[in-house]
Amino acid sequence: MTQHGIYLDQAAATFVDERVLKVMVPYFEQTYANPGSLHRPGVKAKEGVDKAREVVAKILNCSAQEIIFTSGGTESINLAIKGTAFKKGRGHIITSQIEHPAVLESCRYLEQKGFDVTYLNVDKKGLVSSQAVEKAIRKDTILITIMYANNEIGTLEPIEEIGKIAQKHTIAFHVDACQAGGLELDVTKLKVNLMTLNGSKIYGPKGVGILYAKSGIKLEPLFHGGGQEFNLRSGTENVPAIVGFAAALEIVQREKDVENKRLTLLRDYFIQKIVTEIPQTTLNGHPTLRLPNNINISFAGIEGEAILRYLDEQYIAVSTGSACSSNTIKISPVLQAIHLNPADAYGAVRFTLGKHNTKAQLDGVVQELQKIVAALRKISPPPLLNIPKRGRRQ
Amino acid sequence: MTQHGIYLDQAAATFVDERVLKVMVPYFEQTYANPGSLHRPGVKAKEGVDKAREVVAKILNCSAQEIIFTSGGTESINLAIKGTAFKKGRGHIITSQIEHPAVLESCRYLEQKGFDVTYLNVDKKGLVSSQAVEKAIRKDTILITIMYANNEIGTLEPIEEIGKIAQKHTIAFHVDACQAGGLELDVTKLKVNLMTLNGSKIYGPKGVGILYAKSGIKLEPLFHGGGQEFNLRSGTENVPAIVGFAAALEIVQREKDVENKRLTLLRDYFIQKIVTEIPQTTLNGHPTLRLPNNINISFAGIEGEAILRYLDEQYIAVSTGSACSSNTIKISPVLQAIHLNPADAYGAVRFTLGKHNTKAQLDGVVQELQKIVAALRKISPPPLLNIPKRGRRQ
Repeated sequence: MTQHGIYLDQAAATFVDERVLKVMVPYFEQTYANPGSLHRPGVKAKEGVDKAREVVAKILNCSAQEIIFTSGGTESINLAIKGTAFKKGRGHIITSQIEHPAVLESCRYLEQKGFDVTYLNVDKKGLVSSQAVEKAIRKDTILITIMYANNEIGTLEPIEEIGKIAQKHTIAFHVDACQAGGLELDVTKLKVNLMTLNGSKIYGPKGVGILYAKSGIKLEPLFHGGGQEFNLRSGTENVPAIVGFAAALEIVQREKDVENKRLTLLRDYFIQKIVTEIPQTTLNGHPTLRLPNNINISFAGIEGEAILRYLDEQYIAVSTGSACSSNTIKISPVLQAIHLNPADAYGAVRFTLGKHNTKAQLDGVVQELQKIVAALRKISPPPLLNIPKRGRRQ
Repeated sequence: MTQHGIYLDQAAATFVDERVLKVMVPYFEQTYANPGSLHRPGVKAKEGVDKAREVVAKILNCSAQEIIFTSGGTESINLAIKGTAFKKGRGHIITSQIEHPAVLESCRYLEQKGFDVTYLNVDKKGLVSSQAVEKAIRKDTILITIMYANNEIGTLEPIEEIGKIAQKHTIAFHVDACQAGGLELDVTKLKVNLMTLNGSKIYGPKGVGILYAKSGIKLEPLFHGGGQEFNLRSGTENVPAIVGFAAALEIVQREKDVENKRLTLLRDYFIQKIVTEIPQTTLNGHPTLRLPNNINISFAGIEGEAILRYLDEQYIAVSTGSACSSNTIKISPVLQAIHLNPADAYGAVRFTLGKHNTKAQLDGVVQELQKIVAALRKISPPPLLNIPKRGRRQ
């Protein structure tokens, strides 16, 4: 990662693992036929897709027919939420205030179409309460959609508990697991019947994801056409990306025990070092129920973007809050939902670790942080409302 | 293409040009950041997307803001048709009977939602009449959607004439140009205001396409979320595929004059050789207003799939009618629309040429065709209703 210096923005996008790319390349150059074709090149391409589907299904402990390949997390989330809603025609949806924009914007769109949505509060650590989910259930509730792990503050939600409640009330339960590809994905254990994963967060390619849809769950497709993906997602299968996704998920899952232990140690080392060595810093999110690779720190009184830009000059890539909303000057909805005071919210910086990051890199980052924080705190308070912004991302 | 022997199914999917793959690979391994990120790796990824958008816009003679990157032809078509319809809320759509399933199925879906659709007849060569389009226009017509070139029989539709009519009546005009990436794509000349292209038909990657949407055309998005692609298509940009798409389109367009001349000569040589050397064969589609690479021949009284399977044994890949509908025993809707008699319709085989195909290969194919046709005609008539089928594709 020398080209990027120290890349600490893995939650936004990961590089493609060289083992994954190696699996993909023959599907660009040789096994390029359309999986729908009857001839042997077509059959060979179809075998690639079928095998990928089985690999994913095995990891999720479901049947291959329950895996729908899509163009990514946003498509899968839209298909899960709108697909359920439009199939039912009307009804009530339960979600949280800290979901990814793909969830929140899909829900807002459905509100315009006459659906009701409850956006649950979270606590100060970003936790959704499963009791609150149960309380919110109405007779006409058609879907519960809660994320596995928050993309900004890394909080892990009580998916199994919510899953139990959803099962008890026989309500469809969708989980956005885009940030959780390296965690437990057994859908039976998790008690989910819809789950979204995407390739670009697990060292796989961009432009591919899956929706797990438990047999019996009825969805209205977003795309109509050739009837691919069990009539739920028309369009020629993106074979290289599909085989790449499966290879990436397989590697991440196989290596997760060792890697998550390593990341958790690194994460806690980094948090500890920042909060002890840099004054007026606080960890956002939950101290233990959090993604092994997520560190979200508020540097009180300093604008996060100033830190981002300074670190960027030093070839260190980080994120402020969620870059998905960083094209506006507003505080991210996630940080609003956990009731950070404005000074802490503006000063939030997200560091997300990946498999190439080392302790030595993090030591270097802390050194740089000390410099910039000291320098910026001499200028006080920072201008908060007049800085041109652009960009967005997960 | 030795792995596939002789691959004559380029309309279903093309290999990725090695020059295109070379452009893509760095975006998997190095420039992998999220284009929405504020740091320099993100900016660099965004520059790749921006440059690709400009390359495509220059070819289409439009502004970069009018190019929406999608996951492929099916998504673009769905976005154009449903996006227009749902934005209007109600109204009437004009299309033809020989459109790709992505168009026809989107229209059928909209009929269920209360929209009216006129499916125009075509003549025996597969031509849509522009007069018929004009006659079909109603006060509440909101969209005309006609393909540039038919995927099965290769007929080129009178896009400019229809474009003039659409302009006169100020009705949105969408053109499915998935098979026409190597033809004239100047949207001003073509007088279109919505146009779909996809990567996997132009030696670019699968899983990427564009929708050209003229400034002022209002669309309701299919995906809600982070607001990418001018708020019309949320989801992290598939950077390698986007830069690959632009590179592929640029190469195909730069080389089109020479290549289309070469393909047209090959096409006409192949047609002439088959219809003179093999009895009871006829060309389907238009003799001159046709794609330079499309040959669709009916072998009377023989089932096309028997020919496909025999040729496949000899490592020659072809298609029967449209494989999109080849998982059913029915005659393809396109061949029905041009009123082929059943014997000719069942005996239709599509050969689509690409840049690696040569005259010597086609001579070899004709030799094999002579053998199989003679052999199969000894067994008559072939069983038409009892052969297991699978697969679909464009």
